[in-house]
Amino acid sequence: VEAGHRGHVLNLVADLRPADLAALLQHLPADLARVVFRWLPEEVTSRALPELESAERVDLLDGLSTPELVALIDPLASDDQADVLADVDVTQAEDVLVQLEDAVDIEALLSYGEDTAGGLMATEVVAVPLTATVAEATEAVRSNADAVDPVFAVYAVDEENKLAGVIPLKRLLLSPADTPVHEVCEGDAVSVEPDLDQEEVARIMERYDLVALPVVSAGGRLLGRITIDDVMNVIREEAEEDLQRAVGITGEEELSSSIFAVSRGRLVWLLLGLCGAYVSGLVIVGFEEALTIAPVLALFIPIVMAMAGNAGIQSSAIAVQGLASGDLWRSDLARRIGKELGVALLNGVVLAVALAGIVVLSGFGDDTARLALTAAIALMIVIVLSTLVGATVPLALNRIGIDPALAMGPFITVSNDILGLTVFFLVATLLYL
Amino acid sequence: VEAGHRGHVLNLVADLRPADLAALLQHLPADLARVVFRWLPEEVTSRALPELESAERVDLLDGLSTPELVALIDPLASDDQADVLADVDVTQAEDVLVQLEDAVDIEALLSYGEDTAGGLMATEVVAVPLTATVAEATEAVRSNADAVDPVFAVYAVDEENKLAGVIPLKRLLLSPADTPVHEVCEGDAVSVEPDLDQEEVARIMERYDLVALPVVSAGGRLLGRITIDDVMNVIREEAEEDLQRAVGITGEEELSSSIFAVSRGRLVWLLLGLCGAYVSGLVIVGFEEALTIAPVLALFIPIVMAMAGNAGIQSSAIAVQGLASGDLWRSDLARRIGKELGVALLNGVVLAVALAGIVVLSGFGDDTARLALTAAIALMIVIVLSTLVGATVPLALNRIGIDPALAMGPFITVSNDILGLTVFFLVATLLYL
Repeated sequence: VEAGHRGHVLNLVADLRPADLAALLQHLPADLARVVFRWLPEEVTSRALPELESAERVDLLDGLSTPELVALIDPLASDDQADVLADVDVTQAEDVLVQLEDAVDIEALLSYGEDTAGGLMATEVVAVPLTATVAEATEAVRSNADAVDPVFAVYAVDEENKLAGVIPLKRLLLSPADTPVHEVCEGDAVSVEPDLDQEEVARIMERYDLVALPVVSAGGRLLGRITIDDVMNVIREEAEEDLQRAVGITGEEELSSSIFAVSRGRLVWLLLGLCGAYVSGLVIVGFEEALTIAPVLALFIPIVMAMAGNAGIQSSAIAVQGLASGDLWRSDLARRIGKELGVALLNGVVLAVALAGIVVLSGFGDDTARLALTAAIALMIVIVLSTLVGATVPLALNRIGIDPALAMGPFITVSNDILGLTVFFLVATLLYL
Repeated sequence: VEAGHRGHVLNLVADLRPADLAALLQHLPADLARVVFRWLPEEVTSRALPELESAERVDLLDGLSTPELVALIDPLASDDQADVLADVDVTQAEDVLVQLEDAVDIEALLSYGEDTAGGLMATEVVAVPLTATVAEATEAVRSNADAVDPVFAVYAVDEENKLAGVIPLKRLLLSPADTPVHEVCEGDAVSVEPDLDQEEVARIMERYDLVALPVVSAGGRLLGRITIDDVMNVIREEAEEDLQRAVGITGEEELSSSIFAVSRGRLVWLLLGLCGAYVSGLVIVGFEEALTIAPVLALFIPIVMAMAGNAGIQSSAIAVQGLASGDLWRSDLARRIGKELGVALLNGVVLAVALAGIVVLSGFGDDTARLALTAAIALMIVIVLSTLVGATVPLALNRIGIDPALAMGPFITVSNDILGLTVFFLVATLLYL
């Protein structure tokens, strides 16, 4: 298709929504995407920019002149301007920044941490003095119609620009034009400060079913607002990040990440896992004598490792999820452990019986009964210990201020492997040999 | 506190938002929560009901009379009514249903699958004929102000109640009162049918930054709308579900689930894992001769298992995430495998060198060099194979219509353990013995 038929391509792409155009660009091979991106009119590509993944944006914007970048970035909302600018080459970004209409606002936004309320917010809001009337507030919506889109509410501020209340659009629509704003606004509006972590922002908007959340300075001055679409991305990203932590990926791997970035993100835990597994190996070699006397014990090595790792990662995942959603409180620790103990005892018994059954069915001559009993008891202890380790480590990490999701991944698996193998061989030495 | 001081408790709870009250009830011991719930006025508890987790709701509503349930449920939005009703004892639910004001709507909602657009939607919408004026549309917002809250848009329908366009509230506010609705409405509105999967609904609202999405019948008739707050829950739930799949939990474990429900959800994969690990054990016992000749090989069993399992779960998690977010297309298969192969080769080399280094540093007499070489080559092959298995199985499952997240969990770990151990002992037999 892309044999230079520019007109044809433009026709095909003309009716796409910005998000669909972005998806298309992301699936085209990089060189074709660059050609199509440069063919399209600026007003079209400008709107697709915020929808692109960061890596793709870096690629597409690379090589554009400063005036071209200014034309692409200027029409965007301030939060999107800041995001796109972060993907432009640093020295060029400075040149672009000073030429933007809202340079001061954007610079302020760039000063907030990427993962904070400040990093999510747009500075464009519709705000009116408390003394205004409904008609004046409506006029304010009209005069800001291009800059603030969508509008969910008008913010009422006092003479020092401090947030005094929120007027939902519906209330504005239904109130008589001459009503003073202070009579129709909701006074106890939820707001956040710009340095609040984005996960906390998401939890607040989710909990109170908000579609827009005002951001205020420590002194209460209105700085901007966060809209729900940005927070949906946060929820998905944080969830993806948690899952990646759980499988031992550091950083944030995206489909568009380079092979080297992917490799680096995965290697950290693989290398740590290698060292941990080496320790497990040393445990086995340490019980070499037992293995020489009873080589059949080797049969249980993978079983102990799989069960210890799996039971631990199950209970740790539940603890991490509870902490992330805010449903698990630190004060729940005792109740949590009690419950996990119950689950572990129950599962331990079932698995021990199942393993004993497998051993008996397989048949190991005269030793079958003793072997089955040994394996069952060892497995029972391993399941209980590794479940409790999985349940408590995330809570402990959370208490000392470390991201509990780190405990969910290979860390739990590897430490439970070592624990499990040690317990197994000790029990086997005591009961079987 | 709860020594019968009802007045005191009511004072404390009076100013809480519904979501905060729900969180409080969830953290109180079950018997105290029931007492507080029954103390509170119906209009307060009614609003907290939709915010509760299902298990908690079952517990709190149990034992209430039918008139009490009707009083609690009737004031809610139709989607919340359907959700709450699903947690009431089945025979009582029927009695309650017929006494609700919107019984017909609720019954229709209950007929849709829980995980579909129909299961998410509320039937309350503000709809006006295409022939209405802006003033009439505003009046429609006013007369539905209680039932439809929040309002984001008014829907324009033709004479057959087919969705013809959407009028965002902002546009309604800014248009002259006598403008006909058909002149201000957006015609190409995104809408969905009620049987669409909720994950797809979330993807559509996320992609197009929608806060409300109209649901229409196959014939195009307007049935209701889905609001963003319901979809946020979907995104979090689906993400939690994916993480639980990844760690081998079936069903949906919540903090409030009973010990037996938790045990059951975790046991499925533990039992399957036990069987899988037994096969791994048989592989080891099958190479017993090799282990007897060179007991040091046992050192590498945990290493091979940890690396095969971990590399496989990493690449499978990325594939599952890509499929879930819609960013990974089936047509990307070849590119995806090529990239994973690159990552696997790179990581394989690094890990092989690291393992060889560890072996050399540990020192195993005359055999050290040969042992290091054997281990390195085996690990390299294991990493490449298990990474590719992890990357391809989710795509294959997706193609044949099975939830790819199933492939992410212990399934990949266990099958890669078996594969890894077999490869390792084969390589060791060939190169070392």
